[in-house]
Amino acid sequence: MASARAGCQDAPVNRAALRVLVTGGTFDKDYHELEGRLYFRQTHVQEMLRLGRCKLAVEVETLMLIDSLEMTDADRQRVLAACRAAPEERVVITHGTDTMEQTARTIGAAGLAKTIVLTGAMVPYTFGSSDGLFNLGSALAFAQALPPGTYVAMNGRFFRWDDVRKNRLTGVFEERG
Amino acid sequence: MASARAGCQDAPVNRAALRVLVTGGTFDKDYHELEGRLYFRQTHVQEMLRLGRCKLAVEVETLMLIDSLEMTDADRQRVLAACRAAPEERVVITHGTDTMEQTARTIGAAGLAKTIVLTGAMVPYTFGSSDGLFNLGSALAFAQALPPGTYVAMNGRFFRWDDVRKNRLTGVFEERG
Amino acid sequence: MASARAGCQDAPVNRAALRVLVTGGTFDKDYHELEGRLYFRQTHVQEMLRLGRCKLAVEVETLMLIDSLEMTDADRQRVLAACRAAPEERVVITHGTDTMEQTARTIGAAGLAKTIVLTGAMVPYTFGSSDGLFNLGSALAFAQALPPGTYVAMNGRFFRWDDVRKNRLTGVFEERG
Amino acid sequence: MASARAGCQDAPVNRAALRVLVTGGTFDKDYHELEGRLYFRQTHVQEMLRLGRCKLAVEVETLMLIDSLEMTDADRQRVLAACRAAPEERVVITHGTDTMEQTARTIGAAGLAKTIVLTGAMVPYTFGSSDGLFNLGSALAFAQALPPGTYVAMNGRFFRWDDVRKNRLTGVFEERG
Repeated sequence: MASARAGCQDAPVNRAALRVLVTGGTFDKDYHELEGRLYFRQTHVQEMLRLGRCKLAVEVETLMLIDSLEMTDADRQRVLAACRAAPEERVVITHGTDTMEQTARTIGAAGLAKTIVLTGAMVPYTFGSSDGLFNLGSALAFAQALPPGTYVAMNGRFFRWDDVRKNRLTGVFEERG
Repeated sequence: MASARAGCQDAPVNRAALRVLVTGGTFDKDYHELEGRLYFRQTHVQEMLRLGRCKLAVEVETLMLIDSLEMTDADRQRVLAACRAAPEERVVITHGTDTMEQTARTIGAAGLAKTIVLTGAMVPYTFGSSDGLFNLGSALAFAQALPPGTYVAMNGRFFRWDDVRKNRLTGVFEERG
Repeated sequence: MASARAGCQDAPVNRAALRVLVTGGTFDKDYHELEGRLYFRQTHVQEMLRLGRCKLAVEVETLMLIDSLEMTDADRQRVLAACRAAPEERVVITHGTDTMEQTARTIGAAGLAKTIVLTGAMVPYTFGSSDGLFNLGSALAFAQALPPGTYVAMNGRFFRWDDVRKNRLTGVFEERG
Repeated sequence: MASARAGCQDAPVNRAALRVLVTGGTFDKDYHELEGRLYFRQTHVQEMLRLGRCKLAVEVETLMLIDSLEMTDADRQRVLAACRAAPEERVVITHGTDTMEQTARTIGAAGLAKTIVLTGAMVPYTFGSSDGLFNLGSALAFAQALPPGTYVAMNGRFFRWDDVRKNRLTGVFEERG
């Protein structure tokens, strides 16, 4: 089924149906004017899709809005369950970068017959200098064009779920090697 | 050779080497403060790659900085020649949206064994509401993940060179059908 | 009457009632996605006041939305009439920079007992690098704090209506000298 | 001397010499990509002046880069001393909003023969939705046009040092009443 989607013999097919699962992360943080701190108000994914003039049939589902350092095993199981339950074969997950590799392993190890791409941002979208819009464009494209599997899309690249880590010193994603 | 790169049996390989050919288009237009009009000063692609924290080994080559309505057949041949001459197997072309489909046909018909993705923007990058960063992230991802061929990446989607057009009324790219 | 407002003996009084007369200019230009050119859609003054968390009781009145190079004598008379008709003693006029000095002279020569400040922008507000928000904050402040008269507020400074010109080479406002 | 500057009989004089004293505050906060928190790196005042195409002869002096909740009495005395030592008769102080009114009282009570204007922002300048640029434009204008005294410039308005407070519930500055 999945092979029909991204087969070699056939030309690649442009499947629009794609689900974005929102979990929070730096991506979606806002500045709280009265308290002078970062917090979650709501996701910016829809606004970013509008800005990108995105015409894919995207379903956005907010699972949680948390910092990924606070994500528990139970939260990860919830994300995995949402991937499994999604009627779409292509899923993008927005996620904090600090524990993105752990969630990727939880989902990747489940071996679903779907293309699942985790992405996030180093700087909140609401900041002028965010990488969020670039990463979202990149993740949606990888989700459409890569064969089934679980991937991380950061820094303009994609990584397989079992070969990725965030370099804590540089903030850059790289192969585990 | 190209098939080895994006084979079906093999897991997808993360090839960094990618060339961005700049031709201009809305993407790169700036506002001329003294003359009160839009013009080309220089490309913003490098700045956008920095903003996206892009860590791909990208080579940026500026071929021309023109409005795509002014692009001649000779210009298109120059773009095709640059695709052919590129040592990289993956190429992204930034291009005005008005005649992007024509340039895609010129390049696609040549049948190079490379993955070539044309992209652009509806609004200049220097405007706050530009789709440029989203489109660039998307095009770089498609160029890495799609099999050899020529494509247009706009509106979060990809289109094959022989089945794409810009809808003049809506400004949205769609299949020729 | 005006002297009571900004008298020397008395401490300065914080009068909120202020009118913004919109005439267009670079300030308010938008990018037309389908036609690839700059145009006027609507004024951004209210949006800018919200962004500035402005709590002055400001009345915004759109007189016209035109490029100041197209402003006729009849248009200038209309702006002057609106200044005269305004119930507020303090007026800010948003205006294209190219003929701002002419409109300032038309209004200044009328000698109204009001503080009237013309301002504009070198770059449209919708561009990320606009001076518009800075200039609007500056013009509203000058309109509250300067004695009756007609002024131009640009480049962080204020100029009297009979001693100002835009330097065509640098785009900077300066004394006529 | 100061009276000569903003006299009633005389037309207002456009004095360029103005000093900006930087103390930090929300205004100047940056997002730390690796640590996911707000911090001070350096002031953005010069960058904001460039964006505003400001041509005033402004001297920018960074006294400290701190959150105003951490400002001590000794810090306030340092700010006062800098106001006193400044060769300019017009001073703008960038400051966190939480204790701006306290610093205004410390400086105002000293009764210097200078026009001193405190300003800040509810949202960091590096965020797209900041009020900082508007407030800076406003503060520079008030500093040029108001008679000697100490003022707070926020929300498009100015307040005297002995009649201002930040409303903790709304984040808006208002008269103490």
